[in-house]
Amino acid sequence: MTRLHDASWRGFASDNYAGTHPEILEALAEANGGHQIAYGEDVYTARLQAVVKGLFGEQAEAFPVFNGTGANVTALTSMLPRWGAVVATSTAHIHTDENGAPERISGLKLLTVPTPDGKLTPELIDVEAWGWGDEHRAQPLAVSITQTTELGTLYTPSEVRAIADHVHSKGMHLHMDGARIANAAAALDVSFREFTTDAGVDVLSFGGTKNGLLYGEVVIALTPAAVDGLIFLRKLNMQLASKMRFVSAQFIALLEGDLWLRSAGQANAMATRLRSALESSRFQGLGFTQKTQANAVFATLDNAVADRIRERVRFYDWDRAAGEVRWMTAFDTTEADVDAFVAVIQEELAR
Amino acid sequence: MTRLHDASWRGFASDNYAGTHPEILEALAEANGGHQIAYGEDVYTARLQAVVKGLFGEQAEAFPVFNGTGANVTALTSMLPRWGAVVATSTAHIHTDENGAPERISGLKLLTVPTPDGKLTPELIDVEAWGWGDEHRAQPLAVSITQTTELGTLYTPSEVRAIADHVHSKGMHLHMDGARIANAAAALDVSFREFTTDAGVDVLSFGGTKNGLLYGEVVIALTPAAVDGLIFLRKLNMQLASKMRFVSAQFIALLEGDLWLRSAGQANAMATRLRSALESSRFQGLGFTQKTQANAVFATLDNAVADRIRERVRFYDWDRAAGEVRWMTAFDTTEADVDAFVAVIQEELAR
Amino acid sequence: MTRLHDASWRGFASDNYAGTHPEILEALAEANGGHQIAYGEDVYTARLQAVVKGLFGEQAEAFPVFNGTGANVTALTSMLPRWGAVVATSTAHIHTDENGAPERISGLKLLTVPTPDGKLTPELIDVEAWGWGDEHRAQPLAVSITQTTELGTLYTPSEVRAIADHVHSKGMHLHMDGARIANAAAALDVSFREFTTDAGVDVLSFGGTKNGLLYGEVVIALTPAAVDGLIFLRKLNMQLASKMRFVSAQFIALLEGDLWLRSAGQANAMATRLRSALESSRFQGLGFTQKTQANAVFATLDNAVADRIRERVRFYDWDRAAGEVRWMTAFDTTEADVDAFVAVIQEELAR
Amino acid sequence: MTRLHDASWRGFASDNYAGTHPEILEALAEANGGHQIAYGEDVYTARLQAVVKGLFGEQAEAFPVFNGTGANVTALTSMLPRWGAVVATSTAHIHTDENGAPERISGLKLLTVPTPDGKLTPELIDVEAWGWGDEHRAQPLAVSITQTTELGTLYTPSEVRAIADHVHSKGMHLHMDGARIANAAAALDVSFREFTTDAGVDVLSFGGTKNGLLYGEVVIALTPAAVDGLIFLRKLNMQLASKMRFVSAQFIALLEGDLWLRSAGQANAMATRLRSALESSRFQGLGFTQKTQANAVFATLDNAVADRIRERVRFYDWDRAAGEVRWMTAFDTTEADVDAFVAVIQEELAR
Repeated sequence: MTRLHDASWRGFASDNYAGTHPEILEALAEANGGHQIAYGEDVYTARLQAVVKGLFGEQAEAFPVFNGTGANVTALTSMLPRWGAVVATSTAHIHTDENGAPERISGLKLLTVPTPDGKLTPELIDVEAWGWGDEHRAQPLAVSITQTTELGTLYTPSEVRAIADHVHSKGMHLHMDGARIANAAAALDVSFREFTTDAGVDVLSFGGTKNGLLYGEVVIALTPAAVDGLIFLRKLNMQLASKMRFVSAQFIALLEGDLWLRSAGQANAMATRLRSALESSRFQGLGFTQKTQANAVFATLDNAVADRIRERVRFYDWDRAAGEVRWMTAFDTTEADVDAFVAVIQEELAR
Repeated sequence: MTRLHDASWRGFASDNYAGTHPEILEALAEANGGHQIAYGEDVYTARLQAVVKGLFGEQAEAFPVFNGTGANVTALTSMLPRWGAVVATSTAHIHTDENGAPERISGLKLLTVPTPDGKLTPELIDVEAWGWGDEHRAQPLAVSITQTTELGTLYTPSEVRAIADHVHSKGMHLHMDGARIANAAAALDVSFREFTTDAGVDVLSFGGTKNGLLYGEVVIALTPAAVDGLIFLRKLNMQLASKMRFVSAQFIALLEGDLWLRSAGQANAMATRLRSALESSRFQGLGFTQKTQANAVFATLDNAVADRIRERVRFYDWDRAAGEVRWMTAFDTTEADVDAFVAVIQEELAR
Repeated sequence: MTRLHDASWRGFASDNYAGTHPEILEALAEANGGHQIAYGEDVYTARLQAVVKGLFGEQAEAFPVFNGTGANVTALTSMLPRWGAVVATSTAHIHTDENGAPERISGLKLLTVPTPDGKLTPELIDVEAWGWGDEHRAQPLAVSITQTTELGTLYTPSEVRAIADHVHSKGMHLHMDGARIANAAAALDVSFREFTTDAGVDVLSFGGTKNGLLYGEVVIALTPAAVDGLIFLRKLNMQLASKMRFVSAQFIALLEGDLWLRSAGQANAMATRLRSALESSRFQGLGFTQKTQANAVFATLDNAVADRIRERVRFYDWDRAAGEVRWMTAFDTTEADVDAFVAVIQEELAR
Repeated sequence: MTRLHDASWRGFASDNYAGTHPEILEALAEANGGHQIAYGEDVYTARLQAVVKGLFGEQAEAFPVFNGTGANVTALTSMLPRWGAVVATSTAHIHTDENGAPERISGLKLLTVPTPDGKLTPELIDVEAWGWGDEHRAQPLAVSITQTTELGTLYTPSEVRAIADHVHSKGMHLHMDGARIANAAAALDVSFREFTTDAGVDVLSFGGTKNGLLYGEVVIALTPAAVDGLIFLRKLNMQLASKMRFVSAQFIALLEGDLWLRSAGQANAMATRLRSALESSRFQGLGFTQKTQANAVFATLDNAVADRIRERVRFYDWDRAAGEVRWMTAFDTTEADVDAFVAVIQEELAR
């Protein structure tokens, strides 16, 4: 097969528009050749277990899956009985971007709470966390937070800790959707463990695809007692890779060294560079709606201007009625990409 | 990441113990670099559509997914209302090896029929295809056949045609689980089209993983009127890859040239070689339960002997009580592998 | 069996605390004796079809079921594909009081909108009615309104008409949860048809239990093209009564004459009497949060006072944090009941 | 409402063609009047709990529901995790007559085994009870037997005991579908307890409708550790009656005295009378396929003859291809009904 695309084209639409980090492709080649036992009994998956235990503690158990929705639904289903409900923000990916998979696949009820910044707090959780024992009400038994959030914001370790303590005090468990967890760790400059295991997170969807993997996420059970039946649920949720060695090999390559940090750090730095350049330029007609704490910039500008910019560099509207757009950076975003994008924005704002 | 495994180790356990064909890895590298629109709006997925139309007819529509269970469940769900049932063999993968995913994910009812050789016939279908309009009975509205079957056997184009005609005459639709469809085409020495589109198959799960892909299958709607909502179902079934270009690029590499045929043909030839060698040797204590029409040999031998062989070369029991084992070949099985395996079998039978 | 309860005890907790209207028990006795074909092929169900067509138009089709949750879930499921979503208020019974049955039983996604008075409007619907064709978003294909609402308020025929026109203009269908539809018709002093069929409602959950039936509701398809598979869905939703003649006979008794109107009218009148008496007394510490348009009064008062009143006459808190309570009347509430309750409220407010 | 039907018409089609026993209607009238707390906190449901404990042991817990499918699905769901499977006969009502409700509502996988007489045995259970821990296989964690069976046959207490011991030794639990449990107890001439609690049954669907109730069944948890979340599952399965007092009052009337025994005994006696009369007459062209152990006669005769008989007295074909029909008696079947039916059969066989 020959290349069909222009490999120099990049935009600010999404971190999953980016391709695969070359070190990941190398890892796939290393893991290739010969036979390995299918469905996870291979040596790469065994090694990944050790890597995950090293990062998250000896009790942690890793379940590689295909994609983020699969990770979230499998993780949450393992945490909840058939009568369970999940408290989450109204901007949570599980609520807005998974076509109802949590409800449709597992019959989970989502109890959502509006937030200004995509972040739950104990107080916001309490808006929906009540009614235990009442058979008429879906039972709120898990809380799901996203790190970094869908709005590009970040929970500090102590914020996670406060949420986890609150959640546990109510007899619930805490799930973290870590589709961009590497961006969070890079931005916080702490280990994964400090804002997950050590902060009280029970189950984690650890994201790889948005940080340079070809494909693959890992459900990590941090609190074994918080989950049940994960091996069965992964299979019946159609998330069990036969050639699992290749998912695991990617994660080994990502996590054994500092690839995760280099990639996420680059994405974060480029978002910061973009935000800083735009703010320092004090462009007329350009505003910002969220902090840029990781690899996203949420900006407001006239729809017509946004559309002209988009004709030159691809990105998504976030809330068209509010003139809000989202600009994402990826592991492969370069300083030149950012600077060129700033120039385009400036030109179109000035027309 | 460094290689952790012995890449020279191969066995006869499963075609998904094998790794990735080198040409597939090359295709991934070609498709890499720069940004591509996520979730299927990339140029590789567009090209795959053209490739699929070329193979299956202009009306065909391709929906790349992650794995075989995902392909089957998504395909069947798109074919059936909430009150639908699927007639299949009692040895069908959807019944025996998917942990109830069709039932659990989509509420499908399976109506299964025992068969001697893994193959349905119009008469066998009629055992369960009845009761339309009766609200007490799950409505049989689809039939699923597997090509090649889970028992290594094969439907001829005319056998498929007879089934399809019968199925359609009853107002039902026909699904084909083609996890090993390339092995079938190679064995039949016909185009894919002759025993799918042209034989009346409505929806196809086209398998890639068992024929040398890293991962990936494609749901192909051959009869547009037989399906509904595939784009939504793929997403909510957690089978929508964000970086879909990489699934599509693999299938382009597999299907645009003759890689599919070379790989499946090799696997088939090695199974034939194995079967022939064993049969011509007339080993005492070795029998066969199914024809070897593609890349599987189903044999009977004493459990103790089987266990001794297995200590040296890995494979699976099929029916331990009956002393039945399954030996699978893959795209990377060599003549030397087969000859060595025959020698091991001979040795252990002779002990 | 002898009577175990004090049949003179009544309260203001719920219209389903009330028992069965004597005329309904008489109807059951009339329908008894001898054999009738089970599962709806009896003469009472046939007669009910005629009664429903008389009330709602010749195209209407009636599907008797057991209870309100069963009616709502069956109705909505018949209106939606597996990727569908329902827009409803955040106070809708389907969202707050059915333990997630719509999600769990049918995989429906609910998209909820806060409202001040339990009533949707075209503008409020548009908060969630968008994103058709986007595979990532559950597809909003139905809107559900409750008549009378869970907050005791009422849609006028023209309000329903405006909603229906808007819903249809977006390619969606309109469901009405009519658990208290008789109270609505009585309050509006119009026929059922004027605010259902003639106002554009497509599918109706017609409530009987809260208006004096022993048990039983009816799903009524007003727009045949808006539903699919109702007979199958009723069965698989476990809502198909074998002795359906008895559900149907109750509804014939309710609807052929004016029993529905007498019963609902009495309940409404008693709520009005309660509200008027309390308002005219201008009690200190007592407020009202919603209009009393049917058989409910939503009041605010000190929690401690509410608790003292509740020790004497049973009712429910609605929002304890806000000091809000709900007082419901039923078909069997008497003027003496109301007057005594007002006296109790007065006494406890005055303590 | 006036009577619409001929209350003297009876047939042999089904025990749910019959109406309601007069003592049941009386019980409904006694339970009527005034208010009772909804959803099961009424005095009748409290009394029913005591009645059930008296019959089944102090640990037993009763959950009244609407119908048999609702009872079975709720019971089995309470016994199984999301990855569970149920071993049952291929003639089990849950497999053949519930339109896939177990699969569709709860995602249960049914693993069915053919039997000659509708009865499982330890050996037959083992055909499907295997594969624990294998993530690819739905996990067989419950077994369901029907008493009396769908073929009119009966398990003795010791047969149930043998099954329960076997089931428990495999780490599974035992469910009994007791849609006709009263017929079984009457036929065995033992207490309910002897072939349920004392024989090792864990969860029971106790049937009322087929033994003269207006409507209503009870899920009875005999082994508390075998179930989880029944109160929530009953609600979300749409089986929670708001006016539960009326379901409970019927069961009190059925079970406190000997109404259950009088009714079931009459049905059984009439089936025996029918079978005996037919056998002693040695009619040409009439055969029998199952023992008549309760209230069913399974006979074979020419389809044309069956159709002529059916024009005069209603009943169902069981297996038309085999010329097999089913004749059911009910609590209200009289000796005169049987004798007249025998005469009709004789006449038509003789034509």
